[in-house]
Amino acid sequence: MTTPSKLALVPFVSVDNMMKLVNKIGPAQMIAEIADYIEADFKRWELFDKTPRVAAHSEEGVIELMPTSDGESYGFKYVNGHPANMARGFQTVTAFGVLARVDNGYPILLSEMTILTALRTAATSALVAKYLAPKGSKTMAMIGNGAQCEFQALAFKTIVGIDTVRLYDIDPDATAKAAKNLAATGLEVISCTSPEDAVAGAQIITTCTADKQCATILTDNMVGAGVHINAIGGDCPGKTELHRDILLRSDIFVEYPPQTRVEGEIQQLDDDHPVTELWRVMLGQAEGRRDDKQITLFDSVGFATEDFSALRYIHDQLAHHDTFVELDMLADPDDPRDLFGMVARAAS
Amino acid sequence: MTTPSKLALVPFVSVDNMMKLVNKIGPAQMIAEIADYIEADFKRWELFDKTPRVAAHSEEGVIELMPTSDGESYGFKYVNGHPANMARGFQTVTAFGVLARVDNGYPILLSEMTILTALRTAATSALVAKYLAPKGSKTMAMIGNGAQCEFQALAFKTIVGIDTVRLYDIDPDATAKAAKNLAATGLEVISCTSPEDAVAGAQIITTCTADKQCATILTDNMVGAGVHINAIGGDCPGKTELHRDILLRSDIFVEYPPQTRVEGEIQQLDDDHPVTELWRVMLGQAEGRRDDKQITLFDSVGFATEDFSALRYIHDQLAHHDTFVELDMLADPDDPRDLFGMVARAAS
Repeated sequence: MTTPSKLALVPFVSVDNMMKLVNKIGPAQMIAEIADYIEADFKRWELFDKTPRVAAHSEEGVIELMPTSDGESYGFKYVNGHPANMARGFQTVTAFGVLARVDNGYPILLSEMTILTALRTAATSALVAKYLAPKGSKTMAMIGNGAQCEFQALAFKTIVGIDTVRLYDIDPDATAKAAKNLAATGLEVISCTSPEDAVAGAQIITTCTADKQCATILTDNMVGAGVHINAIGGDCPGKTELHRDILLRSDIFVEYPPQTRVEGEIQQLDDDHPVTELWRVMLGQAEGRRDDKQITLFDSVGFATEDFSALRYIHDQLAHHDTFVELDMLADPDDPRDLFGMVARAAS
Repeated sequence: MTTPSKLALVPFVSVDNMMKLVNKIGPAQMIAEIADYIEADFKRWELFDKTPRVAAHSEEGVIELMPTSDGESYGFKYVNGHPANMARGFQTVTAFGVLARVDNGYPILLSEMTILTALRTAATSALVAKYLAPKGSKTMAMIGNGAQCEFQALAFKTIVGIDTVRLYDIDPDATAKAAKNLAATGLEVISCTSPEDAVAGAQIITTCTADKQCATILTDNMVGAGVHINAIGGDCPGKTELHRDILLRSDIFVEYPPQTRVEGEIQQLDDDHPVTELWRVMLGQAEGRRDDKQITLFDSVGFATEDFSALRYIHDQLAHHDTFVELDMLADPDDPRDLFGMVARAAS
């Protein structure tokens, strides 16, 4: 094998290495650190090149590319969503991402992003709740105990300071799985048998179910005054979790309105229904929680800058952790004009 | 390390493995085989999801994502273009690509595409010339002797049957490099000292220069009746190679008009100037070369389907050639809902 120059090599973080990195840093600390990167990037929101995601839809699902750039770095995530996958032994969502330098266009990181997306989604939710949830929130209802559940619980413990999660899922096995995984986290974990039971006494309600159809995970009478709702599951056209009446009683906060109006809970509302952009709240340009009677709703769909922040974080960790391999991904002939000669010489 | 399941693994073709594959198959045969894939895909043009490329422009250059899908497979190429890179020891263009299954969204190939793009660009040019160049063309002028030059010469020898190339570059070192690389190919190689000298007696003129500015590599008086022009270098806004008068005397053939009108030579013409789509010529729905006086012009900019065809070809080769490694790129927990548990268990 010819030895490629250093310029030709791109660090790659595999699933195995991502798991090693999570366990070295600790999942709670890693989520908190990623949240700091996400917050920093939200605070320089106007710098970002915000392209809507590029989606290729098919009968079975969707494949999306989510690019963004802050002018210095460029990142994109490849992510699929195939609801029928699980029944066939595949993941519903898989993802990977790339970070590159804007000044020369060279990729500087290739990373798995299935695990990383779970981390950044939880980090974003808890970061947003830090601004919007009632002060001193201690109890979170967690409706939907799938792949995202434990990451959310840990993020809210670490960043918001909750000490209790009340779990509910239509499948009791999912709840049992989550309760077992959360046993050693220091959280009090209460397994509930109905959504009504789960929301009892909770200051924060997180909905994270995987139904593709419009569902009504929360009905209007389940949401009392002063609650913060963290709505994760409604994230594509035709997929919502909350009854419309809840939306009408809530102050709604979103990542990027043009995307959320198509993909989020607010697809149920008029196109001009008022929403507040999170970056404005974080910069102090818009009000977050106003009083203790107000219902705040984070209509989360996930935005490219959050993936960008997460990739930036992972890239920065490579200086401290040996959790990557280098891939010979970029052709780098000694003479850039002599690509043909480089290939021909490799034969000998 | 945990052993990932087979589903989690994505074959990766590195630069080194791509060079091995080219040398195992032979560059001429590989270009011919890729041309067959490109032709097959042009002939089912209407099946493809043709998204314009998604470009992130900066002062220094551009980073683009070029996705497409035939409904069964999905592919995209990441490619940068940074004209100032070469002076700083980087490649002007680097690329990599991914092929995925549409039915479940799983990537099935990650490949370097700097070399592969050179192969597919040459394959496309020669394939198009098979339809458009004068019958019995034996001599090609090759103006611009950079990274693409030898691939073009070899492609035209193999697919069109030329036996002579007449090389010219403003930098004689580039011509010397190309002449040396082509010495063993069986082509008669003639190094010329002016563009006028290069085009003398040529039935085919290929222009492939790297200037970013609008340039005039060919002036009107250099192009005689009956010639086929293969214009490779004009491929972004503000970058052209041919004098406008040549365009007005030519019948112009393009890959995908909405993209070519922005990026190709025809950006110099009115938006409604008639052009012929290549897929129609290949399917016999439109006329190619009409007579031996006609000037035909392939205004090449490179289209996503050509990368898709090339990725499809490489993927098919993996069954026969051991020129890849498998990357643990997709998280694949035993229970898809137990991503957190998978990460936690990896600690022990």
